[in-house]
Amino acid sequence: MGDLFVVKIGGETLNSAASLSKCIEAVAASGKKVVLVHGGGKKVTELAGKLGVKQEIVEGRRITSAETLELCTMVYGGLISKNLVVQLAAKAKTAVGISGADFNAIRSRKRENANIDYGFVGDVEHVSAHVFKDFIEKDIIPVVNSITMGQNFELLNTNADTLAAEIAMSLVSSYKVHLVYCFEKNGVLMDVSDDDSTISELTQQHFTSLKKSGHIADGMLPKLQTAYRALFHGIVEAKIIHSNYLKNYFDGENTGTNVKLH
Amino acid sequence: MGDLFVVKIGGETLNSAASLSKCIEAVAASGKKVVLVHGGGKKVTELAGKLGVKQEIVEGRRITSAETLELCTMVYGGLISKNLVVQLAAKAKTAVGISGADFNAIRSRKRENANIDYGFVGDVEHVSAHVFKDFIEKDIIPVVNSITMGQNFELLNTNADTLAAEIAMSLVSSYKVHLVYCFEKNGVLMDVSDDDSTISELTQQHFTSLKKSGHIADGMLPKLQTAYRALFHGIVEAKIIHSNYLKNYFDGENTGTNVKLH
Repeated sequence: MGDLFVVKIGGETLNSAASLSKCIEAVAASGKKVVLVHGGGKKVTELAGKLGVKQEIVEGRRITSAETLELCTMVYGGLISKNLVVQLAAKAKTAVGISGADFNAIRSRKRENANIDYGFVGDVEHVSAHVFKDFIEKDIIPVVNSITMGQNFELLNTNADTLAAEIAMSLVSSYKVHLVYCFEKNGVLMDVSDDDSTISELTQQHFTSLKKSGHIADGMLPKLQTAYRALFHGIVEAKIIHSNYLKNYFDGENTGTNVKLH
Repeated sequence: MGDLFVVKIGGETLNSAASLSKCIEAVAASGKKVVLVHGGGKKVTELAGKLGVKQEIVEGRRITSAETLELCTMVYGGLISKNLVVQLAAKAKTAVGISGADFNAIRSRKRENANIDYGFVGDVEHVSAHVFKDFIEKDIIPVVNSITMGQNFELLNTNADTLAAEIAMSLVSSYKVHLVYCFEKNGVLMDVSDDDSTISELTQQHFTSLKKSGHIADGMLPKLQTAYRALFHGIVEAKIIHSNYLKNYFDGENTGTNVKLH
């Protein structure tokens, strides 16, 4: 089986033209089979601010009203998606921007919660692996945005970290799948204010103790939990790295945090 | 050769949930091979208004600043595209929303004009017919938005009427291609204020005289010119119809304006 890299681009990287372009260059130059996954929450927050659409984040999850869903669909599915695709094209890589609705690629279930109404938020239920495999085999890069399709054929806002992991897991029978989370920090940090405190290897046991001690918190928790879940389901590697070092990663250098079960 | 219908949805139809849903139903129920094409100018104008992004239309063409291009990419490539795709999915039709950048499907040339700087506006130079044919043969409906890719790998805003005609022309060697413009009027009207004044058949000679007399003007001129051009290049039919009658059209009823060379 060949290697496949599911690369999620997140955080500030999507807002920095320089970092983003470095990422795209790394992907294009790597010659590897790649699936890109992205959201674009910061741009949505910015646009919502300009339009006066109130935003509410509960436990790291965006409450998605109908109005906010429109903004997410515009920003993830349109602006960011097409810009990533055209930047890949500029590097001679054919790509296609897809949401979960395109090709019925990713079905989700609207999140029901007795205490919190998340609105138009979905959790992934099914990934049509063949859609991705077809493109990968034709050397076309799927650029997947975090809008998925619910059971009632509604668009739903989905966590991009989880989405990347679900896509990765769906492809383990065809590839040795590597899940790579790229963002604006050097990896999982022992001290969030110290960029040089990267934990180079993080076992699940170590993670549990760092969670208890409060060293790891906030958005890093679901990211790591979903990475462990993907490892448990057969991906061969999960990494959390700085976007600027994606090229180094592809070149086989040791960078960022290696998330390991044991 | 089988029939192919390139259906452009425009004008107020994209802003009316009821009309749009009728269109989608007609496409899904027809069992025909269809390519959908859309822009979304009215929604962009609305969003630009809310955001205070100044809009300028010269001779029916939108001057597209970098900011306006962002809005077009969001609205055409994201909001409208994904909503059309999910509505088709709800009617059991698999679809994919694509811009000219996806699959390198549609290349354009930035419009140069000594007198007017149109900004990020492109005129279609090349359609990769095989991209469309592959999807059509797999019973996947391409939903094409009017963002294309320029020679320097930039996104460019493109006239959706022309885009539909270019896609239609690119496929004449594989299909009997019908070009259908759907909008909020009953066809080409002899008197723009009288919805019942539809011209049922419009030859190029007749068109020339109606243009001279001022009966046909504004946005209808480029629409018709592009339709004649497509007929000249081998499409078998060009129609301008009311979106609400797309089903009637597919059922073989006589509706709207039949644009004919002779």
